[in-house]
Amino acid sequence: MPSATRFFKIDEPFSFKKGGVLPSITLAYETWGELNKDASNAVLILTGLSPSAHTASSPQDPSPGWWEPMVGPGKPIDSDRFFVISPNSLGSCKGSSGPAGENPETGKPYRLDFPELCIEDIAASAFELVRHLGIERLSTMVGPSMGGMSALAYLQQNPNGARHFLTISSSPNSAPFSIAIRSLQRELIVSDPAWSNGNYDDKNWPETGMRMARKLGMLSYRSGEEWRERFGRRLQDYFPTELFGMNYEVESYLEAAARRFIHSFDPCCYLYLSRCMDWFNVADGFPDLTAALAAIQLRSACVIGVGTDILFPAYQQKEIADALSQNGVETSFTNLDSLMGHDAFLVDYSHFTPLVTDYFNEIWETEPLSA
Amino acid sequence: MPSATRFFKIDEPFSFKKGGVLPSITLAYETWGELNKDASNAVLILTGLSPSAHTASSPQDPSPGWWEPMVGPGKPIDSDRFFVISPNSLGSCKGSSGPAGENPETGKPYRLDFPELCIEDIAASAFELVRHLGIERLSTMVGPSMGGMSALAYLQQNPNGARHFLTISSSPNSAPFSIAIRSLQRELIVSDPAWSNGNYDDKNWPETGMRMARKLGMLSYRSGEEWRERFGRRLQDYFPTELFGMNYEVESYLEAAARRFIHSFDPCCYLYLSRCMDWFNVADGFPDLTAALAAIQLRSACVIGVGTDILFPAYQQKEIADALSQNGVETSFTNLDSLMGHDAFLVDYSHFTPLVTDYFNEIWETEPLSA
Repeated sequence: MPSATRFFKIDEPFSFKKGGVLPSITLAYETWGELNKDASNAVLILTGLSPSAHTASSPQDPSPGWWEPMVGPGKPIDSDRFFVISPNSLGSCKGSSGPAGENPETGKPYRLDFPELCIEDIAASAFELVRHLGIERLSTMVGPSMGGMSALAYLQQNPNGARHFLTISSSPNSAPFSIAIRSLQRELIVSDPAWSNGNYDDKNWPETGMRMARKLGMLSYRSGEEWRERFGRRLQDYFPTELFGMNYEVESYLEAAARRFIHSFDPCCYLYLSRCMDWFNVADGFPDLTAALAAIQLRSACVIGVGTDILFPAYQQKEIADALSQNGVETSFTNLDSLMGHDAFLVDYSHFTPLVTDYFNEIWETEPLSA
Repeated sequence: MPSATRFFKIDEPFSFKKGGVLPSITLAYETWGELNKDASNAVLILTGLSPSAHTASSPQDPSPGWWEPMVGPGKPIDSDRFFVISPNSLGSCKGSSGPAGENPETGKPYRLDFPELCIEDIAASAFELVRHLGIERLSTMVGPSMGGMSALAYLQQNPNGARHFLTISSSPNSAPFSIAIRSLQRELIVSDPAWSNGNYDDKNWPETGMRMARKLGMLSYRSGEEWRERFGRRLQDYFPTELFGMNYEVESYLEAAARRFIHSFDPCCYLYLSRCMDWFNVADGFPDLTAALAAIQLRSACVIGVGTDILFPAYQQKEIADALSQNGVETSFTNLDSLMGHDAFLVDYSHFTPLVTDYFNEIWETEPLSA
């Protein structure tokens, strides 16, 4: 399988916010386009919970990435203009150090021996990657979903870290409804006997917990309005043989989505990343959000939310936009009228493409970057 | 423990919509007030999934009922004026025949030997009770949540069954998002090893499945907006000792609610009632909802939905109201601006009391009933 993924190893102790230390960590990442001479055209994309670093295809790896229509030559985030970087989050299982990675002390996966992880750790590790690539200040920071939290933490840690900021369907902290959803997802996984306090293996995998957690995730990622149009009350093709089995198309849709997920993501990494979102509040230690973002030096920000998003409700994006505006950042806020809920940025390109295209055109036109 | 609950035994074969037959069934019910001479002042309240027949207190049982502020002397549904009847649903476990009841053939609970249950069966059994009480036509049919589905089925089966109709936070069928939620709840229960295909007992109870199903239920009954105001990001008093345990107040709130529920409802009854909601569509076999309700003879209808309800979204109440209006029924529709989501009718009395009071006053004033 061709891969465009590279690995950046930080060969010195990495200290986690909650006190853990690892002697070294690795980040998997991909890039698109070329860094210009004065290193002024870099775009950093920090991801949501589950994506890998493979954000888009490239000559090295032509398989479609998780944000394929958005990144590449001539695309909204145009790699003919910008040098685009996307790491797999610290704590994930797609090549970066995380609970699924090998603990050099034991030769086995870290699992619960991996240090407690915070959004701030994901941000700090991404900063090390950016510095390693020779970039002092990003042109643009991009953060959808959890990536928007990591982006806020990055900018708080590095007030001059970027000139522009695109945040999508994210939040300055986890709302209690979102905490409730994620808390229940974690409970579903650890309640599966196969979870076995982290001592699962390929043959004894918490499949039931992962299946149900993913289904609950899907409920929080989409919207009733979308499913009303998409599925209505259509029955599925076959009648269930199992008692209390599935009757309706919406049920088999969720089952198929869950089955794809069960073995594609590590349960322990899922728990760590889920929990770190709940813990995150960029305003912790500040009187309010405006104060928390006051030091950040941005020329512009583009904040996008979706009206049907129940996981990162649009009022939270409005809070980010208001706080940036109050700090003098030229900020646009769009509450998008999409049926697709939290997942809109991944599936509703007819709504998202024009907004992202316009924002990056503006950036390009207001400060032409050297080639 | 004092009880106002009476039992009505139908001592002849009861045929279920999907083909099952029981030689007899029993409905538990309570009443408030007195039936007048011409039996014209009866109000039937059909309940949501979990309530018992104890809708309100009475001299026989002074403990508060599930709709205490709404039913009784001088209350919005005024038992000084009306004879109010509320049965425990067929299929439930609060005294009526259901999967938890004793199968006379075996002396053990029916469990999965109970016939497949539909909303239409709940309606048909309630009609037998009404007839048994000497009532030809109800003054008013009241149906919140699942009870509104049962009420629609009752009126479809008995087009002259009531003169007035109050339906709250209900629907003419289950939306796919609601099916998805309930399907996952059922999966949570049957995935619990203690479910054991219905062979659980008091010592071996599917507690984990019931706990998680109830938490998911709570997510669907309330709203993010409410929890944002109520809990915010407040931490709970004690720090979790369990790994991936609870940190936030919203999590301990859900845990407490779930623990109260686990042993208060029978898992098998829960599965039957949950599934019958998914199956229900009052328009099945008709070209559309208006045609499905065309035969129903009502003088008025009051339809109330709540904007923040994600389980029975307000557009579904609007569909009921529109169909009744198109059939010439004088119908009012209110989309209530409450933060309380689906549960608003149970907790947001400041919004609901005036609406229900006004509707019953109107009924009383436009057709004064004999004492």
